[in-house]
Amino acid sequence: MKINIPMYRYLLLSLLLILFASSSAVAQDALPSWNDGPAKKAIVEFVAAVTDEKGRDYVEPAERIATFDNDGTLWSEQPMYFQLFFVIDRVKALAPKNPAWKTQQPFKAVLENDIQALAALGEKGLLELVMATHAGNTTEEFEQTVKNWLSTAKHPKTGRPYTDLVYQPMLEVLAYLRANGFKNYIVSGGGIEFMRPWTERVYGIPPEQVIGSSIKTKFEMRKGHPVLVRLPELNFIDDKAGKPVGINQHIGQRPIAAFGNSDGDLQMLQWTAAGKGARYMLILHHTDAEREWAYDRKSKIGHLDKALDEGFNSGWTVVDMKEDWKVIYPFQLK
Amino acid sequence: MKINIPMYRYLLLSLLLILFASSSAVAQDALPSWNDGPAKKAIVEFVAAVTDEKGRDYVEPAERIATFDNDGTLWSEQPMYFQLFFVIDRVKALAPKNPAWKTQQPFKAVLENDIQALAALGEKGLLELVMATHAGNTTEEFEQTVKNWLSTAKHPKTGRPYTDLVYQPMLEVLAYLRANGFKNYIVSGGGIEFMRPWTERVYGIPPEQVIGSSIKTKFEMRKGHPVLVRLPELNFIDDKAGKPVGINQHIGQRPIAAFGNSDGDLQMLQWTAAGKGARYMLILHHTDAEREWAYDRKSKIGHLDKALDEGFNSGWTVVDMKEDWKVIYPFQLK
Repeated sequence: MKINIPMYRYLLLSLLLILFASSSAVAQDALPSWNDGPAKKAIVEFVAAVTDEKGRDYVEPAERIATFDNDGTLWSEQPMYFQLFFVIDRVKALAPKNPAWKTQQPFKAVLENDIQALAALGEKGLLELVMATHAGNTTEEFEQTVKNWLSTAKHPKTGRPYTDLVYQPMLEVLAYLRANGFKNYIVSGGGIEFMRPWTERVYGIPPEQVIGSSIKTKFEMRKGHPVLVRLPELNFIDDKAGKPVGINQHIGQRPIAAFGNSDGDLQMLQWTAAGKGARYMLILHHTDAEREWAYDRKSKIGHLDKALDEGFNSGWTVVDMKEDWKVIYPFQLK
Repeated sequence: MKINIPMYRYLLLSLLLILFASSSAVAQDALPSWNDGPAKKAIVEFVAAVTDEKGRDYVEPAERIATFDNDGTLWSEQPMYFQLFFVIDRVKALAPKNPAWKTQQPFKAVLENDIQALAALGEKGLLELVMATHAGNTTEEFEQTVKNWLSTAKHPKTGRPYTDLVYQPMLEVLAYLRANGFKNYIVSGGGIEFMRPWTERVYGIPPEQVIGSSIKTKFEMRKGHPVLVRLPELNFIDDKAGKPVGINQHIGQRPIAAFGNSDGDLQMLQWTAAGKGARYMLILHHTDAEREWAYDRKSKIGHLDKALDEGFNSGWTVVDMKEDWKVIYPFQLK
């Protein structure tokens, strides 16, 4: 047998590359936008522990479930939740077909840009706006409406598309966990069908891994074609004590890692922390008034008070965005 | 450089094995318990079409979603839904702590094995039994109860554990689709938390890919430990027109393949069929009175009438269990 030495070397190299591809990826810095410090150290150590097959904290890939809040955890939420900008734009777009809204609250306040009246809305008024703008269409129509809005709408302060305002360091965490066999879920108070049209593209999270608040839908045959019609009736509020309920309903197993930024995430963090074995809980503390926003205990949006205390007391990772993050958004990368 | 020829051969062989592992698996018969015929041919052709990257029917792996009914599609459902045997056994187990049940319907009928009274129960009585046996505990307690029951309970006709009565040909379909990049979901009228404790072990379907009927749960702190308490209140009925609703809620994208056996699956099949691109719809027709059961239009359990007509008229695969299947259950394999 004649041996072709360069060919042999090539094959050997290929084989080695195949065999060692995974370990070489781990050796790189998977979190380049994080400054070295306790926050980065904690997550790297956790991932190393649960993926070490010989370690006592090893977790099977099928059980590597991580849950992420969205507003204020994966993208910004100031000066108000981005979905509320969608609601406002939809009220304005639908106003010509609803002439009565000109004189009828809460629609009047939206159409007149009456910030004070909007701020005083309360839950009932807000719900009315959501139902008027999110229901009465089919699931396919609503998906298209969300996609169209995202492709044109601009954030008022930055002038950028809303999906530009996602956190680069958190994108790195998502990719890092995914590369280590985790299944990442969004568990958000936001609308499930408002998020699903874009989470795969922006976060690499497919529709079936998005949990959120929802309205009821109804199956109907329209001219022989089946549709799901969105009804003006609440189905589920995926916030606070609703988050563990939503997690149980959709995933059916307990996360081993959870990421949040407000008291709305406290129960999800507690539910995650209470499981057996290695756990990782992270609270994002918005401390950077210059590069993003700084807010916590006194803010209505992203209110962070009890969860901050519990985070400090329980030894959860509390990220200081100003100190821990090299950049906030992907467009700031050099 | 000195070349070690056996080592070289070994490395080359390893490399070839790695490179060709996937294609050689496809070349084998993935459905050995299916007789050659139109049913087997249709599914093999569908899978070939949606996985052929150069073909016009190619579907990205992320969109290869298949949904399966459970009762009568993946396991037997006669002489009655297996979950009802669980209900009956639970009523008997809980009776000592509920002395009033001795004189109170529908519990009295269960405790006295009064088949006639049970058959006449209707939806309200049935719901009462389900709530009394499925609620009032935590999710963790209920999961353990289901596991304990399955490890001891025996099917009345066959004397076998219920999880023995799964269909070998359908296990092969599940594995075949999984090997071809599909994500398999159960979409059942049965209880979501009744199925999740065992679907991974029996079908290879993890908890997050199980959709079913559910009762409400509530997050509570008990002595500093968070629990989800199961409430005696219906949350969702995942049957008939509820199946597309459940699919949309949990998966957020439309299946490209759906498998059912009764009119309770009709809307799921219609919803699947109405999507764009290649589709596969299968109805399991129980035609084998000798090896399993034969029933369709006149049966209360697994009632198959409209869906059978629509299956024939629309060119869906209608499996004739007697003709198409070499064996029914795994324990019949030689």
